[in-house]
Amino acid sequence: MAQRPANGAGKPRPWAQMATTLVDVATGRRPADLVVRNGRWVNVHSGEVIPGTDLAIAGGRFAYCGPDASHAIGEGTTVVDAGGRHLVPGLCDGHMHVESGMVTVTEFCRAVIPHGTTSMFIDPHEIANVLGLPGVRLMHDEALAMPVNVHVQMPSCVPSAPGLENPGATLGVAEVAEAMGWENIIGLGEVMNFPGVSANDPKMAGEIAATMKAGKTVGGHYASPDLGLPFAGYVAGGPEDDHEGTRAADAIARVRLGMKAMLRLGSAWFDVAEQVKAVTEQGIDPRNFILCTDDSHSGTLVNEGHMDRVLRHAIAQGLKPVTAIQMATLNTAQHFGLEREIGSIAPGRSADFLIVEDLAGMKIDQVYARGMLAAEAGKLVIDIPPYDYPQSARNTVHVGRTIEAKDFDIKAPAGANEVRARVIGVIENQAPTKALEADLPVEEGLVAMDRANDICQIAVVERHKGTGKVVNALVSGFGYKEDCALASTVAHDSHHMIVVGTNKQDMALAANRLAEVGGGVVLFSKGRELALVEMPIAGLMSDERAEIVAAKAGRLTEAMRACGCTLNNAYMQHSLLALVVIPELRISDVGLVDVRTFEKVELFV
Amino acid sequence: MAQRPANGAGKPRPWAQMATTLVDVATGRRPADLVVRNGRWVNVHSGEVIPGTDLAIAGGRFAYCGPDASHAIGEGTTVVDAGGRHLVPGLCDGHMHVESGMVTVTEFCRAVIPHGTTSMFIDPHEIANVLGLPGVRLMHDEALAMPVNVHVQMPSCVPSAPGLENPGATLGVAEVAEAMGWENIIGLGEVMNFPGVSANDPKMAGEIAATMKAGKTVGGHYASPDLGLPFAGYVAGGPEDDHEGTRAADAIARVRLGMKAMLRLGSAWFDVAEQVKAVTEQGIDPRNFILCTDDSHSGTLVNEGHMDRVLRHAIAQGLKPVTAIQMATLNTAQHFGLEREIGSIAPGRSADFLIVEDLAGMKIDQVYARGMLAAEAGKLVIDIPPYDYPQSARNTVHVGRTIEAKDFDIKAPAGANEVRARVIGVIENQAPTKALEADLPVEEGLVAMDRANDICQIAVVERHKGTGKVVNALVSGFGYKEDCALASTVAHDSHHMIVVGTNKQDMALAANRLAEVGGGVVLFSKGRELALVEMPIAGLMSDERAEIVAAKAGRLTEAMRACGCTLNNAYMQHSLLALVVIPELRISDVGLVDVRTFEKVELFV
Repeated sequence: MAQRPANGAGKPRPWAQMATTLVDVATGRRPADLVVRNGRWVNVHSGEVIPGTDLAIAGGRFAYCGPDASHAIGEGTTVVDAGGRHLVPGLCDGHMHVESGMVTVTEFCRAVIPHGTTSMFIDPHEIANVLGLPGVRLMHDEALAMPVNVHVQMPSCVPSAPGLENPGATLGVAEVAEAMGWENIIGLGEVMNFPGVSANDPKMAGEIAATMKAGKTVGGHYASPDLGLPFAGYVAGGPEDDHEGTRAADAIARVRLGMKAMLRLGSAWFDVAEQVKAVTEQGIDPRNFILCTDDSHSGTLVNEGHMDRVLRHAIAQGLKPVTAIQMATLNTAQHFGLEREIGSIAPGRSADFLIVEDLAGMKIDQVYARGMLAAEAGKLVIDIPPYDYPQSARNTVHVGRTIEAKDFDIKAPAGANEVRARVIGVIENQAPTKALEADLPVEEGLVAMDRANDICQIAVVERHKGTGKVVNALVSGFGYKEDCALASTVAHDSHHMIVVGTNKQDMALAANRLAEVGGGVVLFSKGRELALVEMPIAGLMSDERAEIVAAKAGRLTEAMRACGCTLNNAYMQHSLLALVVIPELRISDVGLVDVRTFEKVELFV
Repeated sequence: MAQRPANGAGKPRPWAQMATTLVDVATGRRPADLVVRNGRWVNVHSGEVIPGTDLAIAGGRFAYCGPDASHAIGEGTTVVDAGGRHLVPGLCDGHMHVESGMVTVTEFCRAVIPHGTTSMFIDPHEIANVLGLPGVRLMHDEALAMPVNVHVQMPSCVPSAPGLENPGATLGVAEVAEAMGWENIIGLGEVMNFPGVSANDPKMAGEIAATMKAGKTVGGHYASPDLGLPFAGYVAGGPEDDHEGTRAADAIARVRLGMKAMLRLGSAWFDVAEQVKAVTEQGIDPRNFILCTDDSHSGTLVNEGHMDRVLRHAIAQGLKPVTAIQMATLNTAQHFGLEREIGSIAPGRSADFLIVEDLAGMKIDQVYARGMLAAEAGKLVIDIPPYDYPQSARNTVHVGRTIEAKDFDIKAPAGANEVRARVIGVIENQAPTKALEADLPVEEGLVAMDRANDICQIAVVERHKGTGKVVNALVSGFGYKEDCALASTVAHDSHHMIVVGTNKQDMALAANRLAEVGGGVVLFSKGRELALVEMPIAGLMSDERAEIVAAKAGRLTEAMRACGCTLNNAYMQHSLLALVVIPELRISDVGLVDVRTFEKVELFV
């Protein structure tokens, strides 16, 4: 395993400082560190594939790219024969959340570098909801220490739904302005309060203005099919990209108005195939299209890949390989003002590149990052030291006391034998829920669950300030047939604890177990722990390897199935039930929320 | 004529400050200043032409671009019917020298706005050679006062040939670093000392590093057909564009290495047709191609046009109109980091646009700059107040004394009846000269001219420091048949005074006349002034209208013809004879220079 310093020391010096060295190497006055011979240069600038290309690299940057680098070979030069294989620029993920992988930035990098990703633009929106600006700073600093380029977008919407939830922290214009001065902040994270932008909400306008003033990129998130005036207002407000489009018309509307259309292939988002028809069928100029993942679970990273997976998929839709690669390299770099730094194999740029036999198949033989071999045949060959998260980030599950079964009691109105109650209805394969109603029996003054009709209890346990508050409600759709309870501290976006169970004893056990391990997700059945994925960092991320996390998550899914839950993405459905910005009915630490009207509603009708 | 403040006050406020207004207009909560209805939107982002498009403009920026802007029309809104004509983004000239027009920035703008140019990237290299950094600052400040976007590139190579000439001022790393802090400096002007970059000349490396550090764009100038290691070294050194290519292979080489290929159509440069074949015949991605003029004489501006002329020509070579327009709008804006500010018709951008009936013909009906009608049917309809150049810029021709005919005496070696002398040979339609030799008679101890063999005298009169120094030599190729002399204070690049004459009396008269009027170009014959173009600003620019200057320059050309000079660009040939960076033989204030060896040589062989 190669030795390399990973605490930011591996970053090449700026081109301005390296230029004389690069000139010396390019002209043959000084030997290169590395020469790659006889490759097929995937040139994203010209749109060509150029056979017979050599590369010479010094100090982590390309010095020479052309037909013959023999003049740059000296005694200490490592020479690699590409044997006619393709030389592809290192891949960029234009927008993503590390937390979705349930691992740290370090472990995410470890997982995706073998898949060819050498640049990421990450929005630490989840940790921001738990730890605020210090949480963003932690991931910012961890990102800086990586052996690949991890740029951070400052989260813009914390909380996501002001007044309807109380996350662990609040960010506003002042915090955004402060963060814009940090060296590794590349811009503003997806501005998801899109009605706020169109309505000139002062917080949204202020954050965007602070970002523009800093000369950085404003990320967008316009999650509505309405391409009329609300969209026109959103674009006029300043967001520069959007990954929420799903139809070709969405992509075209964004590009026409000068935004970048970010096409997303996440673990659960499949938004490339339809939108890429704008290029393949309608002839729209591809230069303003960017590929991204947004959310990748560790299972996807381990079993399917990352940006290599996105590229395979995009090419399979009929894009020319070099065009698809532009969408994951040069276009992304240009969007963030980094065209002279990353995104292509050209003099001066960071020497991030891949050796690939079959371009359409995107099977990557070798990954070079900053001029060093980082992965080979799907395996990381460098060491990335673990990043040391402080205790403050590891001790974030504050329930304030031991949770007991009776905390989940739902008292019926005095004297009632039966109640009519609101029930959150989970919809298979969709993020929205249904606002259902059901008649439920009352036993000893308490509302009873109705397992026969798949109605069980859901609770939000306040976990940021240790108030001991528990909000109870009802949910349908998980299909649990056994005595069981699932608890999770990943609870978008305010990340309290969501507990769903068919009995209160298991619910209490699950809640207390997460408080004990510092967060994660756990399944109890009949007093026994069936599966646990510990996520001690902010209650959102494990610091274990992605393979291990993926395996644990896999066991969790199996255990949930064994309890009767047959949903495709059951854990994801669970963790989204507090997302009080997507209709129709959700639960937060404030209570039950009708997201059609953005109002708190009572449990009983 | 519309009233508008032109002293920079016409510049729209930054998007960050305007955003809430733009959002209000886009969503119909506030009326626009201007609405244009029913146009064909030339969309340089998507590469489409979209019929039935309306635009709404407020505060000089686009607020809405889409199918129907009726919601943005209020009582005070001006409504323009485009009648199905094209809406084209205002054109950008990616690299040019205002001084080549022999007029001020103000008069240049007045001349080119009716031709659709609304953004220029100017390199005041000539005034820098006369007045140094204060001269650059003057044009920088004049540029800021314009009603269109004039961005300034800081000259990089003053002097052009250190040691072989003494210009009026010297610029170096310190001056470049200082200028990078000025608000209107967009980058470094063409780095023409290309051997210096490949050789790591500290001044070149230092200037490039200072520019990179400021995050600004490094302009290139690689004037050699060698695309091997010297070119590789040049690119590794940092220049980001180049307008000196002439062949398709030149453009391709630049684009492959991550530079922008700037294709030039100036008054005397015809470099578009060959290079654009890289796109039209070889399928290279056009996104990294940019159109520019470099040098346009006032006659070209008045009689043929500016960027509209370049576009007509580029389209006539087989480019799709929208692709050609991208090369003169979006591509240019993106190159200089201004994509969110200029170069397209899209929300937030400065409302610079043209109304054009026939796209391929590029006949422009109306030009809007910053949301106001600036020109119509080829005529400027706004007032641009003259910019007041200080006396220090108007009093730059210091010959130190009255020049007399005997100052042009060339003394023969003692006792010689005949001498063999070096002669600068002008080549029709080419910038290089020939290093000729000739045998000349000696009369009364002085070398005599040989009008029969078209050999006359050339002199450089020092005019920056008033030393009274006159350097004499011989030139052939102008074809003067009469007694006459032409003097010019435009004398690239050090801009002393070049006098060419068939008799010494006229040479003295011409030199003294330029000293009297503060510079320009003048033709004397037999003691009579035949033509004069006054250029009192730095001896390089008139402050009269381009039409007047063009008319005077036209009379000069006629008068030169009458004296027997039949060269195509005789005045240009004259003004380049001191350009001691282009082979073979030149003259400077230092003496005769062999530019093949970069050495001073004696007049007599």
